[in-house]
Amino acid sequence: MKSYSPVLQDLIEAFKQLPGIGIKSAQRIVFYLLKENDNKAQFLADSIQKSFQSIKECDQCRMYTEEQTCGICTDNNRDSGIICVIETPADLIAIENTMEFKGKYFVLMGRLSPIDGIGPEELKIDLLINVLQQSNVREVILAVSPTVEGEATVAYIASLVESENIKSSRIAYGVPMGGELEYVDSNTLIQALNNRNTIDG
Amino acid sequence: MKSYSPVLQDLIEAFKQLPGIGIKSAQRIVFYLLKENDNKAQFLADSIQKSFQSIKECDQCRMYTEEQTCGICTDNNRDSGIICVIETPADLIAIENTMEFKGKYFVLMGRLSPIDGIGPEELKIDLLINVLQQSNVREVILAVSPTVEGEATVAYIASLVESENIKSSRIAYGVPMGGELEYVDSNTLIQALNNRNTIDG
Repeated sequence: MKSYSPVLQDLIEAFKQLPGIGIKSAQRIVFYLLKENDNKAQFLADSIQKSFQSIKECDQCRMYTEEQTCGICTDNNRDSGIICVIETPADLIAIENTMEFKGKYFVLMGRLSPIDGIGPEELKIDLLINVLQQSNVREVILAVSPTVEGEATVAYIASLVESENIKSSRIAYGVPMGGELEYVDSNTLIQALNNRNTIDG
Repeated sequence: MKSYSPVLQDLIEAFKQLPGIGIKSAQRIVFYLLKENDNKAQFLADSIQKSFQSIKECDQCRMYTEEQTCGICTDNNRDSGIICVIETPADLIAIENTMEFKGKYFVLMGRLSPIDGIGPEELKIDLLINVLQQSNVREVILAVSPTVEGEATVAYIASLVESENIKSSRIAYGVPMGGELEYVDSNTLIQALNNRNTIDG
């Protein structure tokens, strides 16, 4: 589209490369920023620049933070005896938002996938084992997505955790709350049937 | 959500303020940028910064450009006798993408809306009249959205264009191409019936 001037074209391209943003959304965002006063655009540009200078992985759990160790890992009110292993920082946020889990985390930043060159080293499993050995960990909860690679990741980590004599568990798979049974897929129903619980009463 | 470090929180906020981007999309974009190598984020930050230093309105048509006069206005292959008046830069791009219109443009950057304090001055109607007087304009096409404010804008500009003894026209309103008649709203159908064309044959 040669209707754009080169600088404008670059700006639209820069937004278009972001996940979930197509050409129309990129245009909309760019025209919005150009129409607004410069503050918002400046805030955005500054935030991006600042983040990339300061944000790194927490040396305990690999969550993004600008500190050496993140706020959750340094929080003494949290139970360091339970570690929840998740794939992404977004998963950590999802679990934190439930306000139910009071233990600590370990972010794998991916899952085992030999085809993409992601092995135990990329997931920094060594660091996880290190944490397990140094803290008095009682249980490791594996909250990894139930995909083929996720299952392999769970099996691999569980075996390492067991060899440290620590209990490992995985989150329950089943029918989502509020879901209509008839719309739930077969694999999920099989899980829900196999993992049925006794009704106490 | 205090699970984020302050810098991370700021970055997510900065993206969340953009149109069409909610908290989930903002998180996704930020984690994507943090996971990628720094090039994409740097390109984005640089593009934003550069744009706001250089992009301004074309002195003829008000389209965003880093030149004094934009590429379309300075293109001698285009017919400067026809001016298409549109509301936004995105509208200009939409019409350019049809590759059908070979005249020039004038971007209002809004529509008359006294309640929002947008009058003829904000739309720089003076500049439009100036262009009409200086170029040898034969026709002004008003391609403004068919809303209440849009109609008022069309009526206002059409009267000024007529007083310059220049023909004014508006784009056709009717059933969109490929649309199923039964799903077209009543107002559009009324327009389509009233503006019916004789079939030559």
